[in-house]
This record gives sequence, C-alpha cells and structure tokens, in this order.
Amino acid sequence: HPTYPVARQTNDITLHTLWPGCRYVSKAAAKTQLEFEYNGPSMKTEVPGPRSKELTKQLGEMQNVGAINFFCNYEESRGNYLVDVDGNRMLDYTDPLYSYWLSAFVNRPALGIMPPENFPEKLAESLLSVAPSGMSRVQTMACGSCSNENAYKAMFIWYRNKERGHNIPSDEDMSSCMINQSPGCPDLSILSFMGGFHGRTMGCLATTHSKAIHKLDVPSFDWPIAPFPKLKYPLEEFTRENAQEEARCLEEVEDLIVQWRQKGRPVAGIVIEPIQAEGGDNHATPDFFKKLRNIARKHGSAFHVDEVQTGGGTTGKFWAHEHWGMDDPADIVSFSKKMLTGGFYHKDELQAYRIFNTWMGDPSKNLFLAEVLNVIRRENLLEEVTRSGKTLLQGLYQLQDQYPNLLSSARGQGTFCAIDIRDDATRNSIILKARDKGVLLGGCGDRSIRFRPALVFKEHHVHMFLNVFSDVLAEHN
Amino acid sequence: HPTYPVARQTNDITLHTLWPGCRYVSKAAAKTQLEFEYNGPSMKTEVPGPRSKELTKQLGEMQNVGAINFFCNYEESRGNYLVDVDGNRMLDYTDPLYSYWLSAFVNRPALGIMPPENFPEKLAESLLSVAPSGMSRVQTMACGSCSNENAYKAMFIWYRNKERGHNIPSDEDMSSCMINQSPGCPDLSILSFMGGFHGRTMGCLATTHSKAIHKLDVPSFDWPIAPFPKLKYPLEEFTRENAQEEARCLEEVEDLIVQWRQKGRPVAGIVIEPIQAEGGDNHATPDFFKKLRNIARKHGSAFHVDEVQTGGGTTGKFWAHEHWGMDDPADIVSFSKKMLTGGFYHKDELQAYRIFNTWMGDPSKNLFLAEVLNVIRRENLLEEVTRSGKTLLQGLYQLQDQYPNLLSSARGQGTFCAIDIRDDATRNSIILKARDKGVLLGGCGDRSIRFRPALVFKEHHVHMFLNVFSDVLAEHN
Repeated sequence: HPTYPVARQTNDITLHTLWPGCRYVSKAAAKTQLEFEYNGPSMKTEVPGPRSKELTKQLGEMQNVGAINFFCNYEESRGNYLVDVDGNRMLDYTDPLYSYWLSAFVNRPALGIMPPENFPEKLAESLLSVAPSGMSRVQTMACGSCSNENAYKAMFIWYRNKERGHNIPSDEDMSSCMINQSPGCPDLSILSFMGGFHGRTMGCLATTHSKAIHKLDVPSFDWPIAPFPKLKYPLEEFTRENAQEEARCLEEVEDLIVQWRQKGRPVAGIVIEPIQAEGGDNHATPDFFKKLRNIARKHGSAFHVDEVQTGGGTTGKFWAHEHWGMDDPADIVSFSKKMLTGGFYHKDELQAYRIFNTWMGDPSKNLFLAEVLNVIRRENLLEEVTRSGKTLLQGLYQLQDQYPNLLSSARGQGTFCAIDIRDDATRNSIILKARDKGVLLGGCGDRSIRFRPALVFKEHHVHMFLNVFSDVLAEHN
Repeated sequence: HPTYPVARQTNDITLHTLWPGCRYVSKAAAKTQLEFEYNGPSMKTEVPGPRSKELTKQLGEMQNVGAINFFCNYEESRGNYLVDVDGNRMLDYTDPLYSYWLSAFVNRPALGIMPPENFPEKLAESLLSVAPSGMSRVQTMACGSCSNENAYKAMFIWYRNKERGHNIPSDEDMSSCMINQSPGCPDLSILSFMGGFHGRTMGCLATTHSKAIHKLDVPSFDWPIAPFPKLKYPLEEFTRENAQEEARCLEEVEDLIVQWRQKGRPVAGIVIEPIQAEGGDNHATPDFFKKLRNIARKHGSAFHVDEVQTGGGTTGKFWAHEHWGMDDPADIVSFSKKMLTGGFYHKDELQAYRIFNTWMGDPSKNLFLAEVLNVIRRENLLEEVTRSGKTLLQGLYQLQDQYPNLLSSARGQGTFCAIDIRDDATRNSIILKARDKGVLLGGCGDRSIRFRPALVFKEHHVHMFLNVFSDVLAEHN
C-alpha cells in the first residue's frame, strides 16, 4: 500500500527531565521547567479499554457520560501524549481538553491532586452524599449562571419530549431550530417570581427580577412573572394574614400558567428560591412551597428550586428546601459557589443527554468539597449554625424592640438572617459605620441588611457582632 | 447610650495552630487541620485604606472596579476575619466572597499562590500583555459562554446608551425592564452567521447555528442570521469565485441589518469567528473581514470577534484576527479556556460598569497565564506553530493529491487545520482507526477532520501523524 513519502522521524526526540510539580509557580521555577516526552504512541487495548469502560459505567449512574471517550491518566500524560487509564498512549491531535497544552506546562500540579480515575468515587463522596431527597443524579457546571441556564434547558427538553410523546424530533424540528424558529426553538416559558434572582446570562436574566440595574438594556423573553408573597414577620405571629397573602400569590401563579398556555407559550418550568436572597431575604412558609409544587405537578411544569444562595448549610439544614419537610420537593435543584462547583441535581426523567459542555465543572473541586463535607459532619457545623442562628435572631428581636423606629421584620433561618432598616440611606450609613468598627455587613432588597456569616460563625461571634451593631444603632437613633 | 445586654465574650477564643498550606489535600491532612482565629476586629485606617485605593486605581485602568470595596490580604485572613491590604481586620458577616468560609479550610493554598494584592500587576503581565490591537481593557469571566453572554450585554448596553444620547434611563426604562418588557428590555438583536458556534447558554445559543442538537427544544430570539462564505480551497487558487461568494454574503449582511432595523429589532452587534471551528473549519479572507467590520461601523453596530477557539496561538499568531492586518479589527474580542480564563477585551467606549459577577473569573489563572506566555515567548512557540503548520498543510495537500476520491479541501492557518473526507461514515471510521494506532483526531462540520495539536507540536510530531494518517487512508481507499 502507498507510503507517505516523508522520512519517519519517530526516534528524533529530545529527552528532558520533568518539571517537578511545584505549587508556587514563580519565574524562577519556570526557567527550570523542562519537558519529557515519549517517543511515539503505544497501544495496549482497544479504546475505551476495560478500565475506562468500568469507570464510565460507574459515572453513568451519577452523570451523563455520552461525551466521555475514555478516562485519562494525567500523571502519565505529557507533552503531546495522552495516556488513558488502560495504559494506552496516544498522540493528541484533538482539543476536547482545550487547555491540555497548558496542562502539560502548568496545570499538572492542580490536576495531579485528583487523578480523574477517582472521579466517580469522588463524586459519590462529595456532591451525591448530600443529594436532595428523591434525586440521585447530578450535573456539574462551571458557574452559577451556567447551572441555571442548563437546568432551564433540561426542563425545556423534558417538556418538548413529553409533547412529542417521546418520539424522535421531526425534520421540521431539526431544520427550524437552526434558524431560531419554532417548532424547533419552541415558544416555551419559565415562570419566575418578582424579586427573584437567578443569574445574569440572558436565560437566567429573563427570570431575574430583583434590580433594574441587572436587566436594563438587555433583550428578554415574554415569560410569566408571579408575585412572591410579602409576609409579615415573625411569621408565627401573623399566620392568618400570611396564609391569605400566600393564597393570593398561588392563585396568580395558576392564572399565569393558564394565560401563557393560551398565548402559545406554555410554562415548561417554575423556578423559585427557598428564600429570595438578593431580592431582600423574603421568606414564605413550607405550606406555600408544598402547594406551589403541587400546582407545577398539576399543570405538567417542572419545579426547579434554585439553592445557589441558600444551599450548603447556612439555613441550618444542608438545603433550605429541607425545611419544607417533603419527600419529593423538586424536579431540579441548582447550586453553585458555596458548593465549590456549580451544577444541578435532577430527577431521572429530567436527564438531558444533550446538556453538555467541554468542562462540566472542575473535577478537582469535588475533592475539596468531599473534605469540606467531612469537616461539616465532624464538627457538627449544621447544629452550630442552628444554635448561632437562634442567638442571632433573638438578638435582632431584642434590638428591634429597643429601636422600633429604626428596625423591623427581623427574620431568618439558621444564620441566613436579615432585618429591615428605616430607609435606604440609614441602611447604608449603618453598613459603613459597622465597617469602621471592623464588622462587614451587606445589604439586600430596598432597605434590608443581610447576615451571611461562615458556617464556623460561633455564638461568641454573634455576641461580638450584636455589641458592635448595638453601638452603631445607638448612633442612628 | 443603650448597651446591648448580652455579655461581651470577645476573649473567649480558642487558639489553634494554622493548617500548614498543603497542595495534596488528603483525609489525613484534614484530620490535622486546626484553626487559628483572631480575638476581635482591629482597624488601622478607614476602609478602603490608602493601599486599597492605590490598587483600585491601578486595576481601574484595566478593568471595571465599581464593585471592589478593598483588596484582601488572604495570607493574614482566617476564620471569620478578613484582613485587608492596609492591615484592617474585620469580622466578616457578608458573602461577597461566597466560598470564603471554605477558603479558610481548603482554598487557602490555591489563593496563596497569588495574593490578590498582585492582581493588577499580574493582569498587566498576563492578559493585557497580549491585548489585541486598539484594546487596553479586559473583563475576565469564569467560562466561555459567560464571556460571550457578557460581551453581548456590553454591546446592548452600549447601543442603548447611544440611542438615549448617553442620558440616564427614563422611569419607563427602569420599570419596564423589571417585567421583561421594552423599552427597558429593548428588542435589539445580534447578527450571527450560519455555521457559527458561540456557546450554549440561551443568549449565546441564539447566535449558534452549527448543529441542531445544540439548539433543539430551547426557546430563542428572532435575530438575523447571515450566510458565512462557502469558499473553495486552497483559497489562493480560487480568488475570483471566492471574492464573488464573499461579496454575496456581505450584501446579505447589509440587507439583514436594514430589514431588522425596519422590524424594530436593530442589530446592536455582529458576532463572528475568524475561522468557523465547530461549524467545519470554514475560512474567509482578510478582505471579507475588513469589509464586514466596515459594514458594522457604517450601521452603528458593534463588531465582536469570538476567539474562544482560535485565540492563543494555534493559528501562528496570538489572535487569528491578526492575520487580517487591521489596526482597528474589532470592538470586542472574547476568549476562553485556552487562555486559562474566560473573558473579553473591549474598546473604551464599550465599558459596561454593569457587567459584573461575584467572581469575574479566577485570579490565580492570571499567574498561570503569565507563565505560559513566558514559555511561548522564550521558546518561540508561535514560529514553531507556523513551521509545523506549514509542514502539516503540505502533507495534507500531498495526501489529497494521492487520494482525490477520499480527501478534499485541505485548509488551515498555523496548525489550526482541517480536511474534508468523502462522507460522514468514512470520516468516523478514519477517526476510530487512527485512534487504534494511537493518534487522537476530532471531527467538525458534516464531514471534516480537524487538527488541533498543542503549541508544542513540532515537525517530527507532524511526520509521525502523517505516517499514521497515510496508513489509515490506505485502508479506506
């Protein structure tokens, strides 16, 4: 058979010594960086080999694996060669791992922390060990906005699959979607709530309604927006009024779902935060969320709980929605930075094999997260949060009694607390004065101060804070 | 003045020893992790202090700094306390750094690599040292989709500011945007090209037209889509036909801009890849891009060059658009993973103070990138790429002459090369057979094979590849 006429040069290889993995990348280190390379490919098994297949099967029980060719052994991979977990060494002419050429120089130490061979095991130890009730699958994503964007896409795909009776898409679906037209790009909608915040990319932004500054000048979708209950605090003192307000909002939700279906823009999913955070720490009762979840089910819409702000333990439970006490609280639960990685949990039927990007998050974060979860468990940090949160809220109630013309509506779950200040100007002055005394506070909503301490915030820190806060309030009375 | 009635407990502090910074986070290490905490806040200057102000000024010349309160000293920060670069120690009750409570346990080593005090300096050494012509500002982002989403937002905001005559938004703007309605959420559009790929979040996806699988079932925007030139290769042998095809596409672009303006959906920006990558490695001539850039200018649309795939040196220049030879090639240039961080460069007038998210990328990546750029310069890797790319393309031309019924349209810039295969089935078979022989190849478009080797891919690797490829082709002839 024909032979390519260029001289074979596979032996003409320079041999260098490996750059010793060094956490502190400095100019000096870079100068000594040298490269070792293999002298050609070497194949031991077919690809994917038995070890890759086994790991793909393990991972397939937790995540989509449609895009995985094989598992890599990054310890052995170098220069232009990828080595897989079955020992096959391949000359790399692709860029599924875009920055692989960089990893050879620089990323090796980071990737070395967690050989991807351990990925399924680490995923089970980390994200899946804290999976919400009823969910056994998780899709990791690089950031919070991407988590919600992809959760929305999963809901749209799920909804259209139902509409098609799970048949394959038509030729018209396939061709119309290429030019942004229906039926391929259908007129579906996501129902969101006034005051909600779900991110700043264009899909997320269409469901964000907290501040004009996020949304101004950016084109959006005609999607339904329901009122979020405006409750009176403490919730237990105003049960009757609050129940009425929640009933009003739920009625509005159902009306909007019907209206948008009639408009030809059916509601594929409902997205809500367990506590509207950026929108002003607005709470609702477990009863509201239970009924909302039932409305979603009744109308065939997916129910997406956005725990990007509330997840991770600050409410005293790992997920804020656990306070609702439901076995089947949601179809999708999204999370982000507090978990060290973005992503979303989902029910089996919301599997979207087409949700994919090159990175799907950073695998090394799962290892970090596994360690963080160990610390949370060993040190009983959720109990600590519950205890500190109770002390904090009691303190805020006391101060509210003491300064009724300055403070109102103290509220919270765990240490995820907030209080309303007389007006925006006073709020900002209080935040600045507290900073001058060494306490960092943040605002949310129109005139609230929010408290977002670390999980290691203990009762003595609460007292330290309340003393400073008390001093600052006295100056504003 | 009134005193908060809870006992002051600021001395009741446990003193631990610091967890020694360790790159290999293991269970054993976690068991010995202990925490040292300060015994209260301590303020040295007002906040931001002089050092923070100086650093903010420096950074302000490169990036938006509207959201920065002060610069942190992460080496000194611990437990519940943040220490700033002026030595102020503050009890942290906010969550602008959402995972700060985690960083205390786990992230310290990573952040320790680059104290944020060095951030302006490192930004100048890294991203700004390779800024495209005419651009001195950069906005970092966590991922590629976020980079393009935020670039689009910057163009929308810029366009609406022009329309408003740079006056402040009206009350109607502010209220209508909260409910996704115009004029606050205006009916603006981004013009994109058939075959283009710009990401998978909903804004990006409305400009992606490479494969139905990305777009199917996801609602989209009614935005104009122009044809990308379908040229004959080698370009220099078909100059007349190619010029005609490019003229046809440019005419269509202008028609679409006029049509969409008439529809009330003006084109705020045009987005294009220098080489359509995912869409099949489609090239166009510098003349096409120059004329397109002029059309954008003439119609008041921003011109956004998406270098997420082409940037970083694989075309033989750091940015593929440098091959156009223009002083003012673009208003926005976006980049991503190959640069180790996502983000976009932009001209001064496209400054969007409202483009913001909590993380704005990962600062430690700038340090890595600075080192990578040093290696690229020291080892003349761009020259290497040009040389290897030339050898690769010559080899592909030879093989194409040898197998005219199997191969066609060999094309490339640097090592960013591709070749068309007879049909999809043969293409996939060739990719699998090459993998069995230890060479990893990828596909793009309907029936192309793309070559995306590392920057350290040298001529001997090219020959090694061409030999294997030649063997595989012989089996398919």
